[in-house]
Amino acid sequence: MNTGKDYTSGNITAAYQGEPGAYSERAAMSYFGNDVNLSPSLTFESVFKKVLSGAAGYGIVPVENSLYGSVYETYDLLFSSKVSITGELYLKINHLLLGKAKDLSLIKRIYSHPQALGQCSGFLNSLQNVEVIPVYDTAGSAKMIAEMGDTESAAIASERAAKEYGLEVIKSDIQNNPENYTRFIVIESGEEKGENLGSREFTNPKTSVCFELESRPGTLARVLTSFASGDINLTKIESRPLAGQPFHYSFFADFIGDSRTPNVKKALQDLRDSSVFSKVLGTYESGERFA
Amino acid sequence: MNTGKDYTSGNITAAYQGEPGAYSERAAMSYFGNDVNLSPSLTFESVFKKVLSGAAGYGIVPVENSLYGSVYETYDLLFSSKVSITGELYLKINHLLLGKAKDLSLIKRIYSHPQALGQCSGFLNSLQNVEVIPVYDTAGSAKMIAEMGDTESAAIASERAAKEYGLEVIKSDIQNNPENYTRFIVIESGEEKGENLGSREFTNPKTSVCFELESRPGTLARVLTSFASGDINLTKIESRPLAGQPFHYSFFADFIGDSRTPNVKKALQDLRDSSVFSKVLGTYESGERFA
Repeated sequence: MNTGKDYTSGNITAAYQGEPGAYSERAAMSYFGNDVNLSPSLTFESVFKKVLSGAAGYGIVPVENSLYGSVYETYDLLFSSKVSITGELYLKINHLLLGKAKDLSLIKRIYSHPQALGQCSGFLNSLQNVEVIPVYDTAGSAKMIAEMGDTESAAIASERAAKEYGLEVIKSDIQNNPENYTRFIVIESGEEKGENLGSREFTNPKTSVCFELESRPGTLARVLTSFASGDINLTKIESRPLAGQPFHYSFFADFIGDSRTPNVKKALQDLRDSSVFSKVLGTYESGERFA
Repeated sequence: MNTGKDYTSGNITAAYQGEPGAYSERAAMSYFGNDVNLSPSLTFESVFKKVLSGAAGYGIVPVENSLYGSVYETYDLLFSSKVSITGELYLKINHLLLGKAKDLSLIKRIYSHPQALGQCSGFLNSLQNVEVIPVYDTAGSAKMIAEMGDTESAAIASERAAKEYGLEVIKSDIQNNPENYTRFIVIESGEEKGENLGSREFTNPKTSVCFELESRPGTLARVLTSFASGDINLTKIESRPLAGQPFHYSFFADFIGDSRTPNVKKALQDLRDSSVFSKVLGTYESGERFA
């Protein structure tokens, strides 16, 4: 994979939110390789703090999915923290039913994060007399089953969680939609100032920005028209009301392009001119998909 | 409050996600009044199912906040379900530290939803030798403390959860940002077809739409320019990649206006012409703020 950087030399520590066996941990290993030093963290805020303090060189956090609780928290932290986005990847989410014994007919209770439960609703609805119990995270549910040692309880979590906690795979392919990917970003300390990119070369560069607009008809249309004039394709846009500032909105947008090329530079200048505040979060290689 | 409807006559049942004492339950009571029949539900999907089956006349679900896990789930359900949005409200989120005894110096462990913990990080960081433990929901953490009867553990949850589970308020005003509001929407069965609105009159109408665009530079700019030409002010926009359709994107947008007025009708016609798919989710009264 061309990430525009060489991660193979030296020691790399990546912070992620969750327990060992979490999908975020697998994202870190897919991106940096199996030799990466992993730093599991209780909250997203703690991941950002570790990156800012230098306790971890990199953080890896989910930004688009339907599994990890609110990614708004990630966006709010990106807005307010002096970090930049230096990479992205898409991780396929494969839910498995895990337990101490392999026999599905024994199972009376199934634990997982409610959004994982929702993504497996077809399978769960096909079961008779099984109680479904929401818990905080998928890997945490697997850990709990392993600690309880109860053959009548099962967890919905990843293959890695099965290995981490020594559980059997009772059933695989239990999710409604097999094409279930989560987008993760890699963060590093320091805001993106252009010079950070140096001579990094990208095959398919993507750039992320955040900005604040006054709430008037047409302000966002003007910004997007400027991007369209530069033939720049937006891949994501999201608005967030700003706390305590009822007539201002913050936006997060991603587009295909490198912040050092003339058409993108022009659009970013227009963005600065039209917005109350704007910040380039980073230019990075468009993410690969990992199974 | 002018919601454009009279909710005082007849029996109203409102489904919400969470345990009794959840912020969503308070949202339902703020909107419909204290006499509303409440139907707590395990998942957001279950709220939508109750509304579609008629088991509940109304559902009330969060759409914008940093507390309730992913609101993407709400958006995905809105996209795929035959429901309409008929109301909205903003609820102030007041976190309190709750326990069996009032003495903060006794507390060794604090449980809550990780995003509630994050919103109280300043307070939590000021404490010495206290373990912070994430659990699935705020009201659930209060229920757990009440059931354990342990005076060394506390939960971060709402005032209503304190009453529901008979807990003492150890400390109030513990959140970092006092202006912490969550936006909820009210849903009813049946898609919005214009005629559903009948002669309902609104003081400050708001309309929500969802649509799919082909991924080409300028498609979104064109849609937004059409809204700007009608002097229509967008209050929210969000893109979502469509599962299994890599070059199509779905969008959710809210704007000030009534879908029956000429300028909005014109913009909605332009939206239909420019998009692969579009749907009006509803016109409703802009939400009041409830403390």
